Amino acid sequence: MVDYRPGLDGVIATQSSISDIDGKNGILSYRGYSIEELAKTSSFEEVAYLLMAGELPKKSQLETFKSDINKNQNLPENLIKFLNSLPKDTDSMQVLQMTAASLGTFYPIKFDSEKAKAKEYKLDYFLDIAAKLIGSLGSVVPAWHRIRFNKKTIPSQNKLNFADNFLNMLDDENESSDLVRRIMDATFILHAEHTINASTFTAMVTASTLSKPFQVISSAIGSLAGPLHGGANQKVVSMLEKIGKKENVRSWLEKTLNEKKVVWGMGHREYSVKDPRANILTTMTKELFDEKGDDVSDLFDTAIELESACNETLSKKGVYANVDFYSGILYREMGIPVDLFTTVFAISRVSGWVAHWAEQISDNKIFRPTQIYQGSSSRKYIKINDR
Amino acid sequence: MVDYRPGLDGVIATQSSISDIDGKNGILSYRGYSIEELAKTSSFEEVAYLLMAGELPKKSQLETFKSDINKNQNLPENLIKFLNSLPKDTDSMQVLQMTAASLGTFYPIKFDSEKAKAKEYKLDYFLDIAAKLIGSLGSVVPAWHRIRFNKKTIPSQNKLNFADNFLNMLDDENESSDLVRRIMDATFILHAEHTINASTFTAMVTASTLSKPFQVISSAIGSLAGPLHGGANQKVVSMLEKIGKKENVRSWLEKTLNEKKVVWGMGHREYSVKDPRANILTTMTKELFDEKGDDVSDLFDTAIELESACNETLSKKGVYANVDFYSGILYREMGIPVDLFTTVFAISRVSGWVAHWAEQISDNKIFRPTQIYQGSSSRKYIKINDR
Repeated sequence: MVDYRPGLDGVIATQSSISDIDGKNGILSYRGYSIEELAKTSSFEEVAYLLMAGELPKKSQLETFKSDINKNQNLPENLIKFLNSLPKDTDSMQVLQMTAASLGTFYPIKFDSEKAKAKEYKLDYFLDIAAKLIGSLGSVVPAWHRIRFNKKTIPSQNKLNFADNFLNMLDDENESSDLVRRIMDATFILHAEHTINASTFTAMVTASTLSKPFQVISSAIGSLAGPLHGGANQKVVSMLEKIGKKENVRSWLEKTLNEKKVVWGMGHREYSVKDPRANILTTMTKELFDEKGDDVSDLFDTAIELESACNETLSKKGVYANVDFYSGILYREMGIPVDLFTTVFAISRVSGWVAHWAEQISDNKIFRPTQIYQGSSSRKYIKINDR
Repeated sequence: MVDYRPGLDGVIATQSSISDIDGKNGILSYRGYSIEELAKTSSFEEVAYLLMAGELPKKSQLETFKSDINKNQNLPENLIKFLNSLPKDTDSMQVLQMTAASLGTFYPIKFDSEKAKAKEYKLDYFLDIAAKLIGSLGSVVPAWHRIRFNKKTIPSQNKLNFADNFLNMLDDENESSDLVRRIMDATFILHAEHTINASTFTAMVTASTLSKPFQVISSAIGSLAGPLHGGANQKVVSMLEKIGKKENVRSWLEKTLNEKKVVWGMGHREYSVKDPRANILTTMTKELFDEKGDDVSDLFDTAIELESACNETLSKKGVYANVDFYSGILYREMGIPVDLFTTVFAISRVSGWVAHWAEQISDNKIFRPTQIYQGSSSRKYIKINDR
């Protein structure tokens, strides 16, 4: 019997070929390609294909995959009707979790557990499922955002890529700059995959019962919704807003550390140096704030100051800024509503989850770990009047 | 680094005081009380209270808990409206997963992750959440069943207990016999909890991100939906229907084993003797078939014959009938539609999931296991025209 490690810290849950983290050197790679190179050179659709297929697509393969995603971006009428039936103040991550669970009804997503058991499903099928899930959920978020504010939903456009469509479906009145559209695409790439995190692990455990792929993704969305996971960048923004001007940073940090409270966006179990995604986001945030000139909030200055103050104290413990530290202020400055941040993370991570789902069912054993029982020993039932 | 065990077989994922399995002696206990005694003597509401609180309730505590469940059984108008917005052929487990994710909108379920971190939530709060989730989801299944067949939904009644209400909300025209109502209650008890199975584990992983409790339950429902888990009793029924008369059993079994195909409802990783729940269900099935006399299907005879044929061959390998083997034919004979079986399992297991959610957040560490990376080593990105 192995030792008990809370949170399964260091316990091997799977053999996987999708992504790799070298935490000491701050390297994250998808299928062997470094995240820096992908964020700079690739597109989200290409990365989603890569995660699933294991290889970069040839031109025709990429065109087909992009067009499949695009086809699924136009939401069916009855899905729009369902979104309209929800109270307008429904939490967006709940809407996304619900919608994911519903997709088998609104999209022709077929999954036969017998075929999965017999390993009859191959790459073409997995890519088809990925295109359906990424396409549909990528449109649900902007559609829901407009529906909740009683605005008309905006159809996706054939000529736009996934990131551009996403921005345009949120708001087609204010055209995004080239830089904003490039950053949107890059942040989708950065959030697409990250080995066996809690939501991916949730997807794997759910997949292991041979549940349907959209139910698997729905479960993973429920897991990502937590503030210790996908909800963290919203927490960073509220934290920075609470701190206010950069002059307040050092006294706030001292007080927070003394009270042993959380500095959101700092530290990651897998990295002992700065998260490579955070490095990329720092550069992007600078570029965006430069482009915007005086027309920006103080948050970036506050964030820079907080990171530098943290470096003086926390870096001795191997605690550095993680991906959530800059993504929140970046999204905020790009005009994405704060309460949609986690859903933006989710529609990107769908690509990683689907890849892990495919990997799981291709060599499946149901997850059923064990426990140390610490409860009452055997005892006799007592009738209610004698208690 | 520990060894890799597929499915985390034998790996300790938690310390828990909720239930215990002694697989060699075929004993399952909830908080120290054997499942046989609870199924015979207790009620589902009392068991749900026990799972959460660790102790059997006093009379007044049970009355309060029952009344809280009952209050939440009357579904809000806008939840009914949402159910009506769904296509009538939506899979019932998908409806349940969606509805669970939506509950924060339709019920006043408050969860503050900061309070959870500070361990401010205590038993009263957990019982309140349990009553809301059990009450609402216990009504969603019969409501959805009626809505999909364009029938009026039936309100819950104060005077009825949970199991009776469930049967009555499904169909108030044909009154169930005392025996059927007792069996319904007992099967809710039998399915309420079973240590760290895949759906409970999904709930724990999701809970560990401090996601909201109804999103945790929604994730667990997605996991239970798989045929290797909660979907198995439906598979047993289709298998028995396919076999037909008991005379066909032995040739069918020989063929199936030769082809190394699955005999559904046989074997359980945790038991090397017959699952104690299966023993209880065998007795109940006999009682029900006796009560019904000639008015029953051949399925029970076929099942008995199959179990006995399996005993001759599979029991050498420690493979015996599990809980799914008899629950399907029992539900079927009680008039529960086959495609609702897994939802019936789910609304029972909600009680166990909520208990594990409470236990998880009371001593939380986010689940983030690790992997053996087997993918490509570092490689350079190639431009699309050069591939």
